[in-house]
Amino acid sequence: MTESAAETIYQEISKVRLIDPHTHIDPLAPASKTLADLLGYHYYTELAHSAGMPKESIEEEGISDKEKVQRLVSNLGPIENTAQYGWLIDICQKFFGLEDNRLDESNWESIYDNAESKMTAADWSDTVLKESNVESVFLTNDFDDPLEGFDTCTYIPCLRTDDLVFHLSKDSIQKRLQHCSGVSLDGSVSNLRDAIEQRFQHFKKNGARACAISLPPSFTPESISDGRTETALSDILKHGENASPANQTALSNRVFWTLAELCEQYQLPFDLMIGVNRGVYGNGVFQGQDLYDSRVSLIQYRDLFNAFPNVNFPISVLASVTNQELVSYAWIFPNVITNGHWWYSNTPSFIAKDATARLEAVPQNKQIGYYSDAYKLEFVFPKFDMYRRVLANVLSEQFVRNSGWNIERAVELGHRVLRKNIEQIFPANQ
Amino acid sequence: MTESAAETIYQEISKVRLIDPHTHIDPLAPASKTLADLLGYHYYTELAHSAGMPKESIEEEGISDKEKVQRLVSNLGPIENTAQYGWLIDICQKFFGLEDNRLDESNWESIYDNAESKMTAADWSDTVLKESNVESVFLTNDFDDPLEGFDTCTYIPCLRTDDLVFHLSKDSIQKRLQHCSGVSLDGSVSNLRDAIEQRFQHFKKNGARACAISLPPSFTPESISDGRTETALSDILKHGENASPANQTALSNRVFWTLAELCEQYQLPFDLMIGVNRGVYGNGVFQGQDLYDSRVSLIQYRDLFNAFPNVNFPISVLASVTNQELVSYAWIFPNVITNGHWWYSNTPSFIAKDATARLEAVPQNKQIGYYSDAYKLEFVFPKFDMYRRVLANVLSEQFVRNSGWNIERAVELGHRVLRKNIEQIFPANQ
Amino acid sequence: MTESAAETIYQEISKVRLIDPHTHIDPLAPASKTLADLLGYHYYTELAHSAGMPKESIEEEGISDKEKVQRLVSNLGPIENTAQYGWLIDICQKFFGLEDNRLDESNWESIYDNAESKMTAADWSDTVLKESNVESVFLTNDFDDPLEGFDTCTYIPCLRTDDLVFHLSKDSIQKRLQHCSGVSLDGSVSNLRDAIEQRFQHFKKNGARACAISLPPSFTPESISDGRTETALSDILKHGENASPANQTALSNRVFWTLAELCEQYQLPFDLMIGVNRGVYGNGVFQGQDLYDSRVSLIQYRDLFNAFPNVNFPISVLASVTNQELVSYAWIFPNVITNGHWWYSNTPSFIAKDATARLEAVPQNKQIGYYSDAYKLEFVFPKFDMYRRVLANVLSEQFVRNSGWNIERAVELGHRVLRKNIEQIFPANQ
Repeated sequence: MTESAAETIYQEISKVRLIDPHTHIDPLAPASKTLADLLGYHYYTELAHSAGMPKESIEEEGISDKEKVQRLVSNLGPIENTAQYGWLIDICQKFFGLEDNRLDESNWESIYDNAESKMTAADWSDTVLKESNVESVFLTNDFDDPLEGFDTCTYIPCLRTDDLVFHLSKDSIQKRLQHCSGVSLDGSVSNLRDAIEQRFQHFKKNGARACAISLPPSFTPESISDGRTETALSDILKHGENASPANQTALSNRVFWTLAELCEQYQLPFDLMIGVNRGVYGNGVFQGQDLYDSRVSLIQYRDLFNAFPNVNFPISVLASVTNQELVSYAWIFPNVITNGHWWYSNTPSFIAKDATARLEAVPQNKQIGYYSDAYKLEFVFPKFDMYRRVLANVLSEQFVRNSGWNIERAVELGHRVLRKNIEQIFPANQ
Repeated sequence: MTESAAETIYQEISKVRLIDPHTHIDPLAPASKTLADLLGYHYYTELAHSAGMPKESIEEEGISDKEKVQRLVSNLGPIENTAQYGWLIDICQKFFGLEDNRLDESNWESIYDNAESKMTAADWSDTVLKESNVESVFLTNDFDDPLEGFDTCTYIPCLRTDDLVFHLSKDSIQKRLQHCSGVSLDGSVSNLRDAIEQRFQHFKKNGARACAISLPPSFTPESISDGRTETALSDILKHGENASPANQTALSNRVFWTLAELCEQYQLPFDLMIGVNRGVYGNGVFQGQDLYDSRVSLIQYRDLFNAFPNVNFPISVLASVTNQELVSYAWIFPNVITNGHWWYSNTPSFIAKDATARLEAVPQNKQIGYYSDAYKLEFVFPKFDMYRRVLANVLSEQFVRNSGWNIERAVELGHRVLRKNIEQIFPANQ
Repeated sequence: MTESAAETIYQEISKVRLIDPHTHIDPLAPASKTLADLLGYHYYTELAHSAGMPKESIEEEGISDKEKVQRLVSNLGPIENTAQYGWLIDICQKFFGLEDNRLDESNWESIYDNAESKMTAADWSDTVLKESNVESVFLTNDFDDPLEGFDTCTYIPCLRTDDLVFHLSKDSIQKRLQHCSGVSLDGSVSNLRDAIEQRFQHFKKNGARACAISLPPSFTPESISDGRTETALSDILKHGENASPANQTALSNRVFWTLAELCEQYQLPFDLMIGVNRGVYGNGVFQGQDLYDSRVSLIQYRDLFNAFPNVNFPISVLASVTNQELVSYAWIFPNVITNGHWWYSNTPSFIAKDATARLEAVPQNKQIGYYSDAYKLEFVFPKFDMYRRVLANVLSEQFVRNSGWNIERAVELGHRVLRKNIEQIFPANQ
C-alpha cells in the first residue's frame, strides 16, 4: 500500500512546474555544449580524483572536450555507487538516449556524439527547461553583474554577497565595487553603505528576488558600531589583505549587518548557507577543495534573527547534524525558513532524514523543499527528481500511512514545498 | 507481517496503565476548562506565531476564551502538517466528538461547545485519567509549594530546582526560600544547606518521588569548596543579581552539588534535562522563546556521575544529536538512565531514531520510555499514543522481525519501558 | 520484493571469505578456553555492571571460570534486549548447540560444559576460523611485540602506537622502546626517530600491514619543529610524567607526525580511530571505563591529510554524529578511507545509518565495510553477521529497489566493501 501510494504521489508531484530557487547557472550559457560540461561538474572531477585519478590528468590544459570525457569516463567505475553518478545516468537516459544504467568505455562515445548534436540546437536551453518541467531558475550573480542580455523572468537574478562580506580587503573587490556603484570608498561608513545600497537598487530594478551568502562555521553575526567600523575600514583601505584580522572580522560583520538592513529596506529574503570551510584540501580539483566543521550552531545567529524580524532568512545547513537546530529555530522564529538540502547533505539518506524532521514540525508555509545548486540546466531535472522520490516516500509513509491523510492532501503538501512557498517567500516585483 | 505485528504490539501495550513520570500539571486544576486551555498550549501559540500570526493577536488581554480559540483556529492551517497539530486532533476526536481530521473554521464552534460542557463536569479530570488509561502523573513543583489540597498518590510531587540553582541571586527567591524553610540565610554554607534540606524533608514527607532541573548547554557541574562558596554567597546576599558572574556561577554549582548530595541522602532520583537556552527569541509568545545550542556533551557531567554512584540520574537531552552519548553513558554508568523524548526531540522521526538506539544498547531496566511534559491532563493521551505507535514499530522491526523475538516478549519489553521501570526507578515511599 | 532481495544478497555475501582488518586477538591464544572468556568480554561485564551487578562480584579474584560464568549469566536478564547479547546467543547457537535464544540459569551449565569440551580440541582456533568463513585477522600489537610463534599470514601484525604517542613520558615505555629497538634515547630528535623506525623495520619484516592508533577528541595533529621537539624531549627524559603538559603535547604531536612519515616511507596505511576519552568512569569494570565527547571534527586533521597525500588513512569515528564528516572527507580527500563501525557506533541502527550514507556518496573503492574488534575468534562471526544483515538490507533497499540495480551488482558491491578493498588497501608484502 505504502509503495503504491508513494508512486502515485511521485507521479502527481512530478507534474508541478518547477521554480528552482538556487542555482549557479550562467544565463548567457545556461546549458551544456558537450558532455564535457556535464562531466566537468565538480562532483565528477572530485569523486574521480578521490577514487584515484590524478588531478593533473583531469585538469590538463589544452585537451579537447572529447579527450576530457574519455579520461573521466574511464575513471567513473569506482563511483558508480554514488548518488551523484546516478544524476549523470539520469541525464544521459532522459536527454541522450542512454539505455543502460552505466556510462562506460563501451558506450560513452555514441552518447557523447548524440549529446553534442542535440546541444548545438539554438533552442537547447529551452528544450531542457521544457523537458525538465522547469519554469525559471534563480541565479548566483556577482555584485557587479550588469544583469543584461537575458530574460530575468526565466533567469532570476540573486545578489551573491560573499565577496563583499569576506573579501572587501582585496584591492580587486574594492575597485570592482567602486566601479560598478559609481561610489568612491572614502573611508566613511555612510559612503560604504551607499556603494552597497546602489547594488541593491541595481539588482532590485533588474528583478532580483533574493540576496545570498555562504558562511564559514566560525561566523557569528554581530552589530558593529560606526566608530569601530571606521577604524576597521581605515586599516583595510590602507593595508588591504594585510590589515589586522580583528579589523577584517569587524568589517565583515558590519557589511553583513548592512546587507541585512538593506534586505529589510528592499524587501529581499536573505539566503544564508551556513557552515562551509573553503580550501580545506588545497590540492584538490577546481571546486573540490571545500569541507566543513560540523560543530556550528544557529545560536550564533540569535542576535541577527532578533534584530531583523521583517527579513526572511531561508537557511541551508551544510551538515545534517545541524538540521534539528534548523527545524527548531524555524519552528520558533517567524523569520527562519528551511531551505533545501545543501551539498554534502544532498544525498538520499540525509534528505530523507532531514525532510521528515522538517515536515513533521515546521509550519508548512516555511519550508522551501529543494533547489538544485546546478551549474548547467541539465542537472536541474535529476537532482529535483532525486528529491521528489524521497519526498514522495516521506509523504506516503509519514502522512498517508501514519497520519491517515488521503493522497490528495499529501500531494498538496508536496506542491507547497516544491513550488507554492517559493512564489510566496520570493515574490516577484509587483 | 511486520505491520500486523506492530499493530498487535500497539494494541497490547496500549493496555498498560500509565504512570506519567514528568508533567507540568497543576494538581488543583489538572484538566482544561475550555478549548482555550488546549489551544493556549505553547506548541499551538508558538507554531501559529511562527507561521505568521502576530503575537499581539494571540496574547491580547481581555479577550474571551472563545475569541482566543477562534483566532487561533483560523491560523492553524499552516501547521496542519505538524505532529503537534496531530495531538490536538487526537484529543478532539477522543474526547469531544470530532469526526474529521481537521479542526477549522467550519467545525470548531461545535467542538468548543461540546468540550466546554464536558469540561464543566466535576469529575472531568478523573474521566480524562480513566479514558486515557492513566494511573498517576508526576508534577513539577516549585520548591516552596505547600503540596496541599490534592491526592499525592495520583498527583505525585516532584521538587523542581531551577530557581534554587540559577536564580538564588534574586531577592524574591531568597525571600521565598527563607520563608518556606523557616531558615534565615546568614551567609554560612551550612545554613544554606539547611534551608534546602528542609525542602527535601517537606517534599519527601509529602510523597515526592523525584528532584528535577533543566540545564543550559554551558553548565558543567563541579564541586565547590566551602570557602569559595562563602565568598560567592556573601557577594550574592549583598549585591543580588549584580553579584559577579563568577560568584553566581560558583553558587549555582554549589547548590547543584548540594542537591545531588541531598538526593543521595533522601533517596530521590535527580532528573537532569540537559541543553536548553532560555529566552533566545525574546519577542516570542509565552513559553515559545527557548531554543538551544546542540554543542553539548555528557562529558561535562563526568565528575557528577562519578561522585554520586548512589544517585540515579534519569537524563533527557534536548537535541537528538546528543542521544548517542546518552545511550553510551547509560550503557557504561550504572547511575545514568535514559529518560523520554524531550521537547524539540519529541516528534516521531526523532523518537524512532532515538528509541531504537536505546533499545538495542542500553540495559532494559535503565530506560524510561516516555513522559508527556503536559500542562493539562488531556495531552497525556495523544503524546503517549504517538510514542506507543513508534515504540510498537521499533519492537516489531528490530525485535520481532530482525531478532526473532515472539510478540509476547516484545510486548513485555514495551511494558517495561512504559511502566515497570518507572515504578522501580521512582519507588513510592514505603 | 525488497525483503526477499535482501535475503538473497545476505546469502551471497555470506559466502565471501573474510579478512578481518582489526581485532585484538592474541595470536598465541586466539580462541576461548571456556565460556568465561566469552562472558568476560567487556561488553558483558560492563553492561551487567551498568544494569546493577557490583564490580566486586564480577572481578573478584580467585573465582573459577564456571563460578564467573554462573554469576554473569544470572545478571544477563536486563541486557537481553541488546545487540551485544545477541552476539553471545549467536555464538552459543552456532558453536555450542544452544537451541533457545536465551542463555539463562536454566541452560547455561550444559552450554558451558559443551563449550569447554569443544574448546579443548587442539585445532579449536582453526575450527572457529573455518566455520566462521574467516581467512585471516589483523592483530593489535604492542610496539615491542616480538611477533614470534604464530603464522603471520593468518594472524597479521599491526603496529599499535598509542603508547608511543601518548605515554612516552612514562619511564616504562621509554625503557621498552630502548630495549626492543636497541636505540638508546639520548635526547636528539634523530635518535628518537631511529628508535621508532627500527620498529617499523621489525614490523614490516614480519608481515605487518597497518599502523594504528586511537585518539582522544582533543587531539589535533600538527607538525612540530626539531627545536621545539628537543626542548620537549629534554623535559620528558628528565621529568617523565611530571614534564610540563605543553611539552608532553608537543612530543605527542612530533611522535605522531613521525609515525605518519614512516607510514609513507614503509608504505603502511595508518588507521586512525578518532574520539575516545579514556577512563571517564574510573570505577568501571576492566575495559568498561572509556567514553567520549562527540564534539570532535575531522577539520582537526586537515594539516595531516594535506601533508601526507601518499599515506592512506582508514578512519574510524566513535560517534555516529561524526559519520557525515567522515563521508565528506573521504569523498574529497583521496587518502581518507572510511573504516568500519567502531565500538559505540557498532549497533544495528547506527551501522544502517552510517553505512547507507557512505555507500551513496563515497567511492566504492574507499570503503572498508567492517572489522570485528574482537578479542577472541568466536566473536568474529556474530559481529560480521550483524553487519552482513544490515549491509544486505541497505543494498537491497538503496540499490536494488531505489536505483534499479540487479542482485548481482549489489552483491558485487557487498563483496568489495567486505573483502576486496581490504586486500587492496592493506596489500600483503610482495
